[in-house]
This record gives sequence, C-alpha cells and structure tokens, in this order.
Amino acid sequence: MSTAENTADDLQQEMLDLGARARAAASVLAKTTAQAKNRALLQAASAMRAGSADILAANALDMAAAERRDLTAALLDRLLLTEDRIEAMAKGLEAVAELSDPVGDIIAEWDRPNGLRISRVRVPLGVIGIIYESRPNVTADAGALCLKSGNAAILRGGSESVHSSRAIHRCLVTGLTAAALPESAIQLLPTTDRAAVGMMLTMPQHIDIIVPRGGRGLIERVQNESRVPVIAHLDGNCHIYVDASADLQMARDISLNAKLRRTGICGASETLLVDRHCATTYLGPLVKDLLDAGCEVRGDDDTQGADDRVVPANEDDWGTEYLDSIIAVKVVDGVTEAISHIETYGSHHTESIIADDGGVAERFLAEVDSAIVLHNASTQFADGGEFGMGAEIGISTNRLHARGPVGVEQLTSFKYVVHGQGQVRP
Amino acid sequence: MSTAENTADDLQQEMLDLGARARAAASVLAKTTAQAKNRALLQAASAMRAGSADILAANALDMAAAERRDLTAALLDRLLLTEDRIEAMAKGLEAVAELSDPVGDIIAEWDRPNGLRISRVRVPLGVIGIIYESRPNVTADAGALCLKSGNAAILRGGSESVHSSRAIHRCLVTGLTAAALPESAIQLLPTTDRAAVGMMLTMPQHIDIIVPRGGRGLIERVQNESRVPVIAHLDGNCHIYVDASADLQMARDISLNAKLRRTGICGASETLLVDRHCATTYLGPLVKDLLDAGCEVRGDDDTQGADDRVVPANEDDWGTEYLDSIIAVKVVDGVTEAISHIETYGSHHTESIIADDGGVAERFLAEVDSAIVLHNASTQFADGGEFGMGAEIGISTNRLHARGPVGVEQLTSFKYVVHGQGQVRP
Repeated sequence: MSTAENTADDLQQEMLDLGARARAAASVLAKTTAQAKNRALLQAASAMRAGSADILAANALDMAAAERRDLTAALLDRLLLTEDRIEAMAKGLEAVAELSDPVGDIIAEWDRPNGLRISRVRVPLGVIGIIYESRPNVTADAGALCLKSGNAAILRGGSESVHSSRAIHRCLVTGLTAAALPESAIQLLPTTDRAAVGMMLTMPQHIDIIVPRGGRGLIERVQNESRVPVIAHLDGNCHIYVDASADLQMARDISLNAKLRRTGICGASETLLVDRHCATTYLGPLVKDLLDAGCEVRGDDDTQGADDRVVPANEDDWGTEYLDSIIAVKVVDGVTEAISHIETYGSHHTESIIADDGGVAERFLAEVDSAIVLHNASTQFADGGEFGMGAEIGISTNRLHARGPVGVEQLTSFKYVVHGQGQVRP
Repeated sequence: MSTAENTADDLQQEMLDLGARARAAASVLAKTTAQAKNRALLQAASAMRAGSADILAANALDMAAAERRDLTAALLDRLLLTEDRIEAMAKGLEAVAELSDPVGDIIAEWDRPNGLRISRVRVPLGVIGIIYESRPNVTADAGALCLKSGNAAILRGGSESVHSSRAIHRCLVTGLTAAALPESAIQLLPTTDRAAVGMMLTMPQHIDIIVPRGGRGLIERVQNESRVPVIAHLDGNCHIYVDASADLQMARDISLNAKLRRTGICGASETLLVDRHCATTYLGPLVKDLLDAGCEVRGDDDTQGADDRVVPANEDDWGTEYLDSIIAVKVVDGVTEAISHIETYGSHHTESIIADDGGVAERFLAEVDSAIVLHNASTQFADGGEFGMGAEIGISTNRLHARGPVGVEQLTSFKYVVHGQGQVRP
C-alpha cells in the first residue's frame, strides 16, 4: 500500500471515529436539559471574553498567511477578528442561550376514538455537519445553534481560518466541559484536508444533515456529492416588483433599501421590475435614486430611455446574483409578466411587490413560488433575526423540511408519542 | 450513433418532456381550488366503477403474464384485482376527496415590532415521483394523495402491473379532464424500461421528491442513486418491550396483536423484549400464546428454557424484519437494556412499551429514537388512518421533513408571506 493510500485510509478511519463520537454525544444531548445547554453556552461566552488575547493571536497567524496569499480585501475583512467582533460572538452565544429550547415542545396533540392520545413532539435531528469558508465566527454561531437544538455538531471550517476557528472552538469546549456535557458535542475537524469534506458527505450513518455555508462553488459541490440530506441555498436572486398601484415614494424607499442597504447578503434585491402602466412616471425617479446612490443600473430598452447613465442589460443579467452595487431593471406588463419573469429567472428565495392594490398583491404573494414573499417591504428583511426567530444558520431554498430562515426550530425533527391503555388494532 | 444510444437519448428526451409537463401542471395545481381537485377525485372514482370491466380485463393480462413467470402466490395476490378491490379503490379516492385541503393553511402567524405581519402558509411541494412495485392500487392511492395536496405526480409502476396501472390511470385522467385540470397532473410513465427509473432519480429540476414504495432492493437502489430528496422507510424492525410493571394480560394481548394481526405490514413487531424481573412468570405465557397461534419463536437461552418449541435465535435475528409469522424473543435487564437493544438493532420505525410504571414508560418514550413510540398499545397502530390523518403514502423513517405516516399534509411545503406598510430595514 502506498503512503498516499495509507494516509487516505487513516483519514477515513479518523473521520469514522469522529462520526461515532458525534453520534454518541447526540444521544446524550437529546436528553440534556435546557439549563445544561444554556450553561455551556454562557460559559463558552465567558471563555471567549477571557481568552480574547489567544483568539486574536491565532487570528493574527491566519491574517498573516492570508496576506502572503494575496487574498482580496473583502476576504481579509471576513477573516479578521477584533475585540469588538469577539465581543459580538460572545453576545451571540448569550443570545442563543436566551432562545426558548425547542426540544420536547408538543407541536400537536389529539385523541383518537379508541382512546389513543397522539402527540407530535419535537426532538433533535441528531448530528449536523457544517461546512463553511473563511468567516471564523461561524464556528461559534453554528456550534451554538446546534447545541441549543440538541444536536451534535461536526464543524469543518475553511483552511484560511484554521487557527482562529481552533481558538474559538476551544472556548466552546470549555463551555461544554463546564456544563458536564461531552466534548464531542461540538467537534472541529482536526484537518483541513479537502478529502475530509468528501467523507463528511458520505457518512449518512453518522451525519444526519449537512449545512454548507459559503460561495456557489462550495454549495454546488456539496449538493452534487452529498449522500446526506443538505439544507442550503444556492442563489439569492431576489426581485422587487413595482406595480402601477404602488405609492411612488414607498417604491423608491424600498427599492433603494432592498438593493443597497447591504449588497452582499442573500436578501439583497438583484432585479427591479416596473409595471409598464406606471413606467413613464415611475421609472425615471426609481432609476435616478439608484444611480445617484452609486449603483450601476443595467436596463432593458425602456429603462435605458429613462436615464442616460443606464447601461444595456443582456439575458445573463436577469439570472445574476450580483452581491454588489449593480441592479438589473426591466419593464413588465403588470403582475402577470412579473410573476412569469420571476419564475423564469428567479432562485425561489425572496421577492417583494410594492402595490396599493390588495388584489394584485395577494395574487403575487400566492403565485410567486419563493421561500419568502413580501408586500410593501424590503427584501432585506429575509433574515431569521428580523423574522423573530433569533439567530439562524442560513436561509434555505429547499422545499423540504426547512424553507426560509433556519433557526433552532428548523434544526429539529419530531416523533409521535402515543399513550394507550392496552389498545390492540382490530 | 448506435441504435442503443439513440434509444437511450430518445428515452432521456421523453423523460425530460414528461418532467416539464409535470412542472407546468404543478404550477396550475398550486392555484387550483379544493373543489376542483375534489371533483377530479370523485369523477375518477365514478370512472373506475363504470370502467371496472376494462380494469379487470387489463388485470387479467397482467395475471396471465405473472402466472407464466411463476410468481409466488403472495405476489399474485398483490397483483390481483377484483370487483371488490376496484370498489375499495374508488372508495379510497372518495375518502381522499373528503380530507381537508392542506394547501393555503396558515400554520403560524405573528407580528413584528416594526409592524410586519409574518405568516407561514402551506403550499404544495411541486412534482412528486412515485416508484412502486406490483400493487396496481398504488396508482390510484398515490395519484389521489398527490392531487389532493396540490402536487403533480409522475408514477412509475412495476412491469408486472403495467396493464392494470394503465387502466386505472385512464380513470384518473378522466377525472382530471372532467374537472378541467391538466392531464399531466398525474402521469404514468409510458415505459417500463428500468433506465427510466434512473432518469427520474436524476431530474431534480423537474421532480422535487421521490417516494419509493416496495421491497428493500427498490428502496436501497433509490436511496443510493437519487439526486432528488427521498421520503422512504427502509425497514420496519419494530419492538415490543414488556416491563416487569406490565399487566400480564395486556402484554399478552398486545404482543399477539402486534406480531400476528397482519405479519406483512411495516408496523408488525419483529422482536419481543421481556424484562428479566418478570421473565420467570411472564415469558412462558407470552411465548405460549405466540406458539399456539402458529408463530415461530426464535429465542435467547432464557426464552428457549421457557418452552420446548422455541428455537435458538442467532445474532442476525435481532436485526431481521421477518414480515412473517416469526418473532425473535430476548430477555433484557429492564428498560435500560431494552432501549440500548433497540438502538443497536432497530430501524427507528415503531416501538411499544407495556408497563404500568409511568416513569419507566416516559423514559422509554423519551429515549427511544423512533418515528413512533407507544405506551400500552400495539405497534400495528403505525398507520396514517389509525392516526386520524386519512390515507397515507407510507411511513417515513427519515428524520427530515416527514417522519412517520406520510399523508396529504406531509406532502406539502410552506412559504413565508409577509405583509408590510412600506418597511425598510434599518
């Protein structure tokens, strides 16, 4: 056997052992009280504050390596930790501790004519694998959400953030130990070998669900290779449709906010659709606001006619998630064409209609097949916190299990508990 | 290009066309009223009664072919249709029509401090692919459940039942047409080419979920090959645990019913675990009942000592789903060993504890990680109808989305509908 094969076998065995430890920890976590889980989270927050110098030192190693590799400024910023960011992570752990514990909730309960009482009771999913890229704070956020929902976590961070993630992970383990919970409840892969990702995707006996967080390349790889169910969103190509019945000022405010409040988040709008019936009066101001704010506008012929600064849009623009200060603008024949445009080019993430006509709005809300549909509100509300669900691990564009923001409740399953008095089936 | 390649390409194109038609039909069904869907179901039931002679003639072709192929008596019985069975199928369609329509149900609704009103609204899943084996009635049942839940169905029946399934499918199409719904709402594959199954499993753009119904070979193939999410159960290795606190008569009644009422269903018990603390008095009568009823009992040493007719169990017996008049029996050290035995050998389907001690029962219900856990009731209640959910398409041992009986509600997803008054995100 060659050394390479030997190493691959060693890695495989290491991953299987890690998976078995996670499964064992999951059994314990399923029975763990909310108090113990919260104690672990609060102790981890304390450890993070107490150990901030160590975390910063570890982060400095990652930053130095990243600078040597000429990473972009945006990537460097994602990687960077500061005292403030560490404090924010610690506060995040405390916020998760304050969420109500979903495990054991009775979702529904009913009696049968034969006297059986049936309850649908929330239980953890089991073991969750999180595969993420450069942001080291995902180590804390994802670990905390998995723990709160009673799941064991297997974390695989990006190689850029390896030292930072290890330092943060040590704080989580300190919290687990302080609460007398198994250390294996939150495991960080000891290796950044990319082969380990492939193994995570093919261990359905040890991992119940995979949550990838990162760029399109990562998500596509995970969705294509995984034998384990995946909760993910691939694209957030979100739309604003301004109906002729819209209040113009509201349409201007929302369009600007939906595109530019933050351009890099999945709920940022990428295409603005304007009803032909109001285009002559509405298109100009809508486009002017965006251009004046520094946004590039790529428009169809009508839109190009509304302002000299508009550049031509091509077919690809309708399907592009820019995540940047660029927007595609198109005039459509009312809500019917808006809905069909979104069906053709959208990613089923988040879309909003601006309209005073309630009937038109209800049609849009009913017929647009997206995880989140809004009426007279910005698409940037697509966020677990804004929905009142607390922290989230992402926004799912899956149709099964979890759609939209994935918070602690979405990281659970349920079982049926049936109480009888000796019933047999006739 | 060879003829074989040409044929494969033709089949691929045929499947893609069929998938696109299903997707288009799903868009229509998502907006279809309950009245129209119910009308289609009732008209299909009428068509089935009126066309029973045609269905019987088609079934006779399938039966003749099956007899030539020397299928077992059990398989022949599954394939056989009679006037009574056709009437039962028609009644099944009418029963699905009477279920309440899940689409549009508001699952949850809440207001945010900024005035946004968020509703979680039930929507269809989209397109459901059903892959099944010999029972032709699945054509009617599965088609009806998908239609009721607003989903387009792509049905792939077994080659043994091809003529019967086509005749039944024609009745469903008659119903769809009578209700002015697209014929493509329920499509039956025009071919029994096994390659078509592989294509169904790799069309995530056209099929949202696959539900396999059949033997272990089919389920394993689907679970291993599918790029589309699968709802399925692989095994129903169900357990009864008789605690020392159990009422003996209740334990005898339930054990007999759980094993022998019907041995071929997934909720039939396959292993009986008896608490060592009551084994000397309980084991004899429990085993005698089963033996006297014609059940083969495979036991551990203790069980062999309880009755001469008990044959030795080996390690494989604990993990076997017999689906037959055979049961494995083992003495365990109380509820703790019962739980760990079930964790080691069970299939996370359905398990029951017989006990008067409520504390012991609650521990079993909480710690056994199965879709359905029962106290003082037969495992044969693992059934959508018995749960009051109406007809079901199967029992899921998935942890995601649908766990336990899969009825019309479990064949839906949801979306978030958000009503605002011009809110932008700060």
